[in-house]
Amino acid sequence: MEFSSKLLENAVYEMSQLPSIGKRTALRLVLHLLQQPKEQTDRLAFALQNLRSEIKHCKNCFNISDLEVCEICSNPMRNRKVICVVEDIRDVMAIESTGQFKGNYHVLGGIISPMDGVGPSDLYIEPLVDKVKKGEVEELIFALSASMEGDTTNFYIFKQLEGVEIKVSTIARGISVGDELQYADEVTLGRSILNRIPFEQSLKG
Amino acid sequence: MEFSSKLLENAVYEMSQLPSIGKRTALRLVLHLLQQPKEQTDRLAFALQNLRSEIKHCKNCFNISDLEVCEICSNPMRNRKVICVVEDIRDVMAIESTGQFKGNYHVLGGIISPMDGVGPSDLYIEPLVDKVKKGEVEELIFALSASMEGDTTNFYIFKQLEGVEIKVSTIARGISVGDELQYADEVTLGRSILNRIPFEQSLKG
Repeated sequence: MEFSSKLLENAVYEMSQLPSIGKRTALRLVLHLLQQPKEQTDRLAFALQNLRSEIKHCKNCFNISDLEVCEICSNPMRNRKVICVVEDIRDVMAIESTGQFKGNYHVLGGIISPMDGVGPSDLYIEPLVDKVKKGEVEELIFALSASMEGDTTNFYIFKQLEGVEIKVSTIARGISVGDELQYADEVTLGRSILNRIPFEQSLKG
Repeated sequence: MEFSSKLLENAVYEMSQLPSIGKRTALRLVLHLLQQPKEQTDRLAFALQNLRSEIKHCKNCFNISDLEVCEICSNPMRNRKVICVVEDIRDVMAIESTGQFKGNYHVLGGIISPMDGVGPSDLYIEPLVDKVKKGEVEELIFALSASMEGDTTNFYIFKQLEGVEIKVSTIARGISVGDELQYADEVTLGRSILNRIPFEQSLKG
């Protein structure tokens, strides 16, 4: 792509550094900003820089937060002895939006993925193990992706906790609500049969 | 979407103001920036703000430019008497990349579209008409989208030039190079028969 303007080329280049934004999309976005009032560009630039420089990670659960300790961890109505282990803030938001969970979270900041060069030491696994070993936790709920990497991470943490008396569970894998059996993949369907639940239990919630 | 952080919420909101970027995509992009070095965010913010405040429109062709007069207009090797009328800078870039055009451009900044509230006075049509009436132009080549709006804009400019002696042409519409006839739409195919060219001419270029 040949640009007639260095300023434009530079802006398009920086925009195209974002994931799944190619050169063409970046050009479209940047030209859009040029057609809008200058204030919109200023607000976007300020919001991004402000976020990057001011944002903190909650020192308890490592979730993204404006404060030293996030709103969830500092909420006295929530059960600190039940901890849901998730990958990142999007999972916290997804679980929060169900309204079904009243414990605390622990955000790992990723999952173990040798292919991407992410090992256990790149994640907040140690603080979690410490917390559990101090006896502060009664139940750990793994809520990671149902992938090889997610399963590896679950298993790695589980092994770290050998000998510690604690209830460890993982969220149920099964047929999505509203899904038809004939279209479900066999692994999910197989797991949903193995992990079947008492019918009375399924009537709740 | 419920955010645990106002800073994050604000950044996602501003990002989602860009076209075709929804809240979820915006969140993904912003979280990506958070995982990268701070410098990347700074560079992006600076590039956008710098572009928005420093960019100029060439006072001759109204293309986006770093200078008062763009590189194409100030190039003495190009024919100023042949002007290609386009919608925006992306069309200039597309035509330039063919290497087939050695004239100048005139960027309208859009096309007439009553549905979007864009009338002739919102576009750089008057300066083009002035240029032509001063006798500075020998040929005008319309290279706008093959849409209702494009055709309307072509026709509007053509009417403005009534009585002025000038050659006005429009880029050829026809079957794309490499396309199969059976899959071409009938309007394009029909036009390509009406506007057939001498075979000898098709052997060139």
